[in-house]
Amino acid sequence: MKTKFILVLLLIFSCVSSFSATAAEPLPSWNDGPVKKTILEFVAAVTDKNSKGYVEPAGRIAVFDNDGTLWVEYPMYTQVLFAFDRVKKLAPQHPEWKTSQPFKALLAGDMKTVGASGMKGLMEIVIATHSGMTAVEFEQEVSNWLAATKQKKFNRLYTELVYQPQLELLDYLQANEFKTFIVSGGGIAFMRPITEKTYGIPPEQVVGSSVLTKFQDKDGKPVLVRMPKIDFINDKAGKPVGIYQHIGRRPILAFGNSDSDMQMIEYTMAGEGRRLGLFVHHTDADREYAYDRKSHVGVLDKALDEADTNGWIIVDMKKDWKAVFPDR
Amino acid sequence: MKTKFILVLLLIFSCVSSFSATAAEPLPSWNDGPVKKTILEFVAAVTDKNSKGYVEPAGRIAVFDNDGTLWVEYPMYTQVLFAFDRVKKLAPQHPEWKTSQPFKALLAGDMKTVGASGMKGLMEIVIATHSGMTAVEFEQEVSNWLAATKQKKFNRLYTELVYQPQLELLDYLQANEFKTFIVSGGGIAFMRPITEKTYGIPPEQVVGSSVLTKFQDKDGKPVLVRMPKIDFINDKAGKPVGIYQHIGRRPILAFGNSDSDMQMIEYTMAGEGRRLGLFVHHTDADREYAYDRKSHVGVLDKALDEADTNGWIIVDMKKDWKAVFPDR
Repeated sequence: MKTKFILVLLLIFSCVSSFSATAAEPLPSWNDGPVKKTILEFVAAVTDKNSKGYVEPAGRIAVFDNDGTLWVEYPMYTQVLFAFDRVKKLAPQHPEWKTSQPFKALLAGDMKTVGASGMKGLMEIVIATHSGMTAVEFEQEVSNWLAATKQKKFNRLYTELVYQPQLELLDYLQANEFKTFIVSGGGIAFMRPITEKTYGIPPEQVVGSSVLTKFQDKDGKPVLVRMPKIDFINDKAGKPVGIYQHIGRRPILAFGNSDSDMQMIEYTMAGEGRRLGLFVHHTDADREYAYDRKSHVGVLDKALDEADTNGWIIVDMKKDWKAVFPDR
Repeated sequence: MKTKFILVLLLIFSCVSSFSATAAEPLPSWNDGPVKKTILEFVAAVTDKNSKGYVEPAGRIAVFDNDGTLWVEYPMYTQVLFAFDRVKKLAPQHPEWKTSQPFKALLAGDMKTVGASGMKGLMEIVIATHSGMTAVEFEQEVSNWLAATKQKKFNRLYTELVYQPQLELLDYLQANEFKTFIVSGGGIAFMRPITEKTYGIPPEQVVGSSVLTKFQDKDGKPVLVRMPKIDFINDKAGKPVGIYQHIGRRPILAFGNSDSDMQMIEYTMAGEGRRLGLFVHHTDADREYAYDRKSHVGVLDKALDEADTNGWIIVDMKKDWKAVFPDR
């Protein structure tokens, strides 16, 4: 009897404390203004049973791009830097790279020639560095690299260069019974090792690009082997397709930062009822970077022109974010 | 103050009532015996923090095949019957089917010729009936058909011919903080309209076969169009691949019913720590059907031979299940 009483007390305590946590002022790193107001009003509307815009918890799907939306992508996508480092690491086993492009240029530090090899060259580098090993081995490679490699400008790990306001927004949405997903052009297997710890997003809620994978027997053990062939590119018009195949229902909130996110946001906004589509605009050269229309990564151009017409929210990093990164 | 008091009371009530529900005798439709005991002991071990086999809630991934594991697949997979009905419905728009196989045979009710067309013929039928429309239109077709079509032997909707012991097992796992997934050879878009209501499994926790899908503009609206091309076959060695791409971590429990589930169960069992792999053996001609090694659907042959060696559990429907279907 006494145990039962204590148990009930514990249950009360855990319920009440989680209630109070939810009631704290949300989004402290977002400056007051029309953007923050729009987000708060949207969440209030879809979670209020008496609101016309009410959405059942099961339908509260929110999708976030990763590079430039949740973590730094400038001056180069983290995964590309990982691939470059792997080329250097694997070079002794690939003497043929000494004479074949874009590997030769990359090994010589001639980034101009690497850049000139374009998407084709980049794909060759991705395939050479992301396949030919088991799923478990690749995950270990990614984890090791991310635990050891610091971004140059900020001298911090990439997993520390996540946007504090977005971490708060993810928390806030999760506390309001949203299911939050990453929907990124980046590799699904590159992101998954860190999304749970970094964003509170479990691997099964990550959607991304992938290489063909085969189930094989290796020394009597069943393993998944990553093959040298792109399976799916989860970018631009691929994003709504990735959402369809992985999630199977249309999000009500989508957050991106570049023209590559337009289709995901169009698809999200085209559903019935209340919807929210947002883009981070990188306007803060002091605290992070400033880039948009003419950038070599994360181009934000068409989306800027069409935002007003389409009711998309442009989040101005400099103006709307009180802090950019978590405190050290 | 009074409101707060009532709120606390409500919280206590909801906590305590959910606590009592969990504490009720689990798996009432499973007969006592070694199989039920093994399941209960497994769940106890992975959820007990003091057990050597403890698994954090995030790692409690359970995967279930659908046809023959969660609902009836005999004498023919539900989705194939749906495809056959759609051929009949679409025939007026396809005069060419009058002279081309396997459509001609199907329209004439000559199932022997349809069967003789093999996997190639079946794929033609699947593609003809599962593509060429938007994702939303296809979902509506599936929902309408499942709401109106009864299985012949039992004269009940297919969504009523789900296995009561499995519904209880899904509930029991979910109550123990497992995340339950369907991993089926069937079409992902065919299952998703009914999994939430039928099994308590949301669409984003369904993994299955798919057709290629494109994001397109249709009369000024962005839509997903299902293309006449198979994208992925989530069967046999495809199942561990589907699990990798969708879930991104290895399950600790896998439940199937045929040799097509062997790879999924091998993959599950090959991980570290406590694991459980199970097969439904259809042994009950009175209450459902009896079929295994020589069946035309859901062949269970090699798995029966290898179960003991591999530590796989064979669930004998006749012996282990007190009830097969939910009461009317």
